[in-house]
Amino acid sequence: MALPAPLHGVIPPVCTPLGPDGEVDTASLTRLVHHLLDGGVHALFALGSTSEVAYLTDAQRGTALETVLEAAAGRVPVLAGVIDTTTPRVLDHARTAAALGADALVATAPFYTRTHPREIAAHFHHLRAAVDLPLLAYDIPVAVHSKLAPELVRELAEDGTLAGLKDSSGDEGSLRRLLTALGGRTGRHRGPAPGFAVLTGSELTADAALLAGADGVVPGLGNVDPAAYVRLYDAARAGHWDRAAAEQERLVTLFAMVDAGPESEMGRSSAALGAFKAALHLLGVTAHGATAFPQRPLGERAVAEVARRLDAAGLLPEGPARGARHD
Amino acid sequence: MALPAPLHGVIPPVCTPLGPDGEVDTASLTRLVHHLLDGGVHALFALGSTSEVAYLTDAQRGTALETVLEAAAGRVPVLAGVIDTTTPRVLDHARTAAALGADALVATAPFYTRTHPREIAAHFHHLRAAVDLPLLAYDIPVAVHSKLAPELVRELAEDGTLAGLKDSSGDEGSLRRLLTALGGRTGRHRGPAPGFAVLTGSELTADAALLAGADGVVPGLGNVDPAAYVRLYDAARAGHWDRAAAEQERLVTLFAMVDAGPESEMGRSSAALGAFKAALHLLGVTAHGATAFPQRPLGERAVAEVARRLDAAGLLPEGPARGARHD
Amino acid sequence: MALPAPLHGVIPPVCTPLGPDGEVDTASLTRLVHHLLDGGVHALFALGSTSEVAYLTDAQRGTALETVLEAAAGRVPVLAGVIDTTTPRVLDHARTAAALGADALVATAPFYTRTHPREIAAHFHHLRAAVDLPLLAYDIPVAVHSKLAPELVRELAEDGTLAGLKDSSGDEGSLRRLLTALGGRTGRHRGPAPGFAVLTGSELTADAALLAGADGVVPGLGNVDPAAYVRLYDAARAGHWDRAAAEQERLVTLFAMVDAGPESEMGRSSAALGAFKAALHLLGVTAHGATAFPQRPLGERAVAEVARRLDAAGLLPEGPARGARHD
Amino acid sequence: MALPAPLHGVIPPVCTPLGPDGEVDTASLTRLVHHLLDGGVHALFALGSTSEVAYLTDAQRGTALETVLEAAAGRVPVLAGVIDTTTPRVLDHARTAAALGADALVATAPFYTRTHPREIAAHFHHLRAAVDLPLLAYDIPVAVHSKLAPELVRELAEDGTLAGLKDSSGDEGSLRRLLTALGGRTGRHRGPAPGFAVLTGSELTADAALLAGADGVVPGLGNVDPAAYVRLYDAARAGHWDRAAAEQERLVTLFAMVDAGPESEMGRSSAALGAFKAALHLLGVTAHGATAFPQRPLGERAVAEVARRLDAAGLLPEGPARGARHD
Repeated sequence: MALPAPLHGVIPPVCTPLGPDGEVDTASLTRLVHHLLDGGVHALFALGSTSEVAYLTDAQRGTALETVLEAAAGRVPVLAGVIDTTTPRVLDHARTAAALGADALVATAPFYTRTHPREIAAHFHHLRAAVDLPLLAYDIPVAVHSKLAPELVRELAEDGTLAGLKDSSGDEGSLRRLLTALGGRTGRHRGPAPGFAVLTGSELTADAALLAGADGVVPGLGNVDPAAYVRLYDAARAGHWDRAAAEQERLVTLFAMVDAGPESEMGRSSAALGAFKAALHLLGVTAHGATAFPQRPLGERAVAEVARRLDAAGLLPEGPARGARHD
Repeated sequence: MALPAPLHGVIPPVCTPLGPDGEVDTASLTRLVHHLLDGGVHALFALGSTSEVAYLTDAQRGTALETVLEAAAGRVPVLAGVIDTTTPRVLDHARTAAALGADALVATAPFYTRTHPREIAAHFHHLRAAVDLPLLAYDIPVAVHSKLAPELVRELAEDGTLAGLKDSSGDEGSLRRLLTALGGRTGRHRGPAPGFAVLTGSELTADAALLAGADGVVPGLGNVDPAAYVRLYDAARAGHWDRAAAEQERLVTLFAMVDAGPESEMGRSSAALGAFKAALHLLGVTAHGATAFPQRPLGERAVAEVARRLDAAGLLPEGPARGARHD
Repeated sequence: MALPAPLHGVIPPVCTPLGPDGEVDTASLTRLVHHLLDGGVHALFALGSTSEVAYLTDAQRGTALETVLEAAAGRVPVLAGVIDTTTPRVLDHARTAAALGADALVATAPFYTRTHPREIAAHFHHLRAAVDLPLLAYDIPVAVHSKLAPELVRELAEDGTLAGLKDSSGDEGSLRRLLTALGGRTGRHRGPAPGFAVLTGSELTADAALLAGADGVVPGLGNVDPAAYVRLYDAARAGHWDRAAAEQERLVTLFAMVDAGPESEMGRSSAALGAFKAALHLLGVTAHGATAFPQRPLGERAVAEVARRLDAAGLLPEGPARGARHD
Repeated sequence: MALPAPLHGVIPPVCTPLGPDGEVDTASLTRLVHHLLDGGVHALFALGSTSEVAYLTDAQRGTALETVLEAAAGRVPVLAGVIDTTTPRVLDHARTAAALGADALVATAPFYTRTHPREIAAHFHHLRAAVDLPLLAYDIPVAVHSKLAPELVRELAEDGTLAGLKDSSGDEGSLRRLLTALGGRTGRHRGPAPGFAVLTGSELTADAALLAGADGVVPGLGNVDPAAYVRLYDAARAGHWDRAAAEQERLVTLFAMVDAGPESEMGRSSAALGAFKAALHLLGVTAHGATAFPQRPLGERAVAEVARRLDAAGLLPEGPARGARHD
């Protein structure tokens, strides 16, 4: 399906539920997509960082994307992450995603290597030319260890290479400068780059990004409570900023579940992913809360803390954790 | 004078005008303070990074602080930066600042050395105990190369060591988590740390920080257009978020003056400081636009670009640049 | 073939010659392997960073490894890089490498994600258990953005998980501490970790690493002048340290070819790889000097500078560049 | 006294013993200087990072430098660190050091601010012009967070601004390239920059640096065992590289004392400084082992571990720790 222009709204990066054997649990993934659609999300982002894309084999990536597409069934657009070190490898993923029916591609700058901005520009130009799908740039320095320069994004937006940006840089000042340069918060729409979508991956400041003129939000925590992000988004669109900020604050409190894992024994990625996946299990959405190898699992105490956070947020209304359901 | 509890509002880090001989131009500094007070600011921060504190000798620091205090004449509180590598050296500055009559101190974590969070905690405890003035922590990883952990700030807020935080980390998500943990945007006021002030140094996202519950903003650009930041603050306090965001957007556009300097020949600090100081000169506030040695000066073209930005922002109403006035 | 215990000597990371179509030029690669064997190298490392592994599709990786194995024809061991983001993806490469006949595997810590040392340990344990080939750890923080802690390497050496370390961290002090902990330069051989091989990827300080007790060297520049590294190694083994250092100095001078590319337009990886590949072309070893997309190619002036460096090193004895041979 | 050209040999960065009141213990410092001179060192470096210069007030810096100069009594040259954020502040220290009689100055690039290489060049030019003493550049990215580019060092060496480099960057490949560019290990002496001294601060690879052509070594650990570094240096000068390497290996083993402090509670600087100072106390050289505030002290177990290391190195021949002597 065609993307709305611009792409907007709440677009969660869909977690990839795994079974005890480490394989994609397609039944749980289907339920998760339904959970997100029921929450009112506007699109889905499969195979992003929160989807543990870096831990999935090519076969597993295919299975996950196929499952999300099937479960979404055309009700909302599905974006597919095509995450790999450089252009030739990304292209392989892009062709697969296109063949499976993805509605848009999301690619980072090259990583592992040290790449010049002109080389990064060539990377995006080539991807766009080689596969006929809208292309979004994924700015995630914490993973790829380079920041997409705002001038580069603007250039690629204005020449039509990019249909959007998913900004997970955490650099809100830089994002504000980009938004302002692209016509500002009221400049309908994106001035010199018509239809260009600016999405933030900063799940703790979604209200601020929307106030600044962003089109949407890609919140990892949106897997757990998609409806809250939709309420936040709707309040923002209606200009009810205090309401949006109150929703955000509630989500910030819920987000503290990522501290449940013991930092001394887990990577920071593992702790956050582990908390989200434990929450989905506790909510009864997925059959298991496992993260991919070699990430260490959350211990019992950490899972209890996640449950406490869910409960405090009113997400566990029925008393005992519902996770048992699918075990 | 006693600080309001909490300290709040627009608190610009006051630039330090220099003469051609590299010495503090006290007449210009006095005019700058009046310019800021006329703009309606709520307090002044002398000897911060934007004041080029790292370039001022101890004697010059004394002169600058004295001049600001005298010019402010008790109309607003004056905070003094006490910036040095470690506790014993910071203490020397703190004692001087107290003797000169500063109303509060602003200190970073130790730098040059690699310091453990427990050592950083001891640093702030000792400063607070040794000099009887309210103490604010200055979180500025770009300068000191460590980030103040939110848990540490919270601990030092709750035990009364810190009267506030000046957050220049650019990590808005972390700031949001801290604000939420300290009672949130509506939890009057700062729950477990009564009177604790959260100030943001992120001049491009002041609206967002205020929406999230920050008490004030410390904008370098506020030297150039203090009244605009006061309008932004007032709109935010009144809950007029769209108006606040529009003011912010105008300031983001004005901020682009920092790109005037040629990156290939100047440090990033120099380019931004050079632009602010050129603007103050063009506005007729200061007699010169010079930055401290060894920073490279802006060239003619860059100064013309700064003038163009000022003009576009409506800050040069009278036609020819007014800077000549004091030449 | 079985690895010698410990693996030792000069083990160049084999460049991957590409055709104008971007595909692996197997004829050139075969010639390159012969060039290296003629130079007297002790083993070959295919699919390393210098092989542009991050730019090769899975199919191209297979072709390259197969070609190297065939050309080596059992005369020296062939190590295969298995470079990917996390364990499940690395395992796919490892199984392919084993099936093709590689003699050992070389794996980095996970990248793109943030991984805890205990998770990194699990990563190597699992790889070793799943594929029955000697496993070397590849410490390359510039690419993966974490450093393998010496204590972790030591633990994995002593428990038999690792057969060796390829150290490209540039942290010679840390390497010296590891070597000393593992029995020192004269502790035959590797004390608590019998047969463990310590190889340095620091091509500019190979003499120093051998003096410190390293077993071998993995020099990217060894593609260009393998015989010189073998002379360096032999001198070191014979205790002729001044001779070894003189060889090293000559190679440091030759290495300056990596500065030929204009930094302002190329990534630092591209400039170095571009120089090595231009040199191989100028030497007549390969039919083309192309690097993989999206790396920018060296310009004519840069190639001329590479030729000048080769000539100064006495590697272009016949006058006109021999590269034309295969064009 | 005039520096030898080039400055060479073992030049320890002199620790600054402190009393329980945090003040400089001049009697202990005098004994330490005698300990170093007895060990045969060729010069002394006061007020370096290992001297805890970042923790000393201006008054304490003066006391420390004065004490070292007096104790050295002209037997060896005394270099003085002039460590501060930018040129104007460094100049104040430089003038004081010159007035006290230092024989050379050692300055880093500016820190706290972000400074362009051309600004760094201006910094060194200005320091050299303003104070008539030989000037050495101190490359220590771990403290100042920028690396001195080898091309810049070379330029400042060749134009006579710098009399030498103290390289604590840990980047041995870069150092090797600089040495080679400056005439190489046998090019007497420093080719285009006559008399220029290259000193390494890498105490674990001093043998390697000397093999590469460095003129001297500035080892923190040299406080503890100066005679061993002198033996290492003499062996290297005589071309006895295996003997030099064996001395280095013994010192690497001794260096492990820096791991004695519990990493979870101390900064990495504190742990290393704490170990060296505990060792000096155990050896009876200093009256106390205290480090400057806010560094955490080593605990009893850590001090016992330091003693064990000293004993294993044969530095505690008399049985019970000699530290009690001065208590």
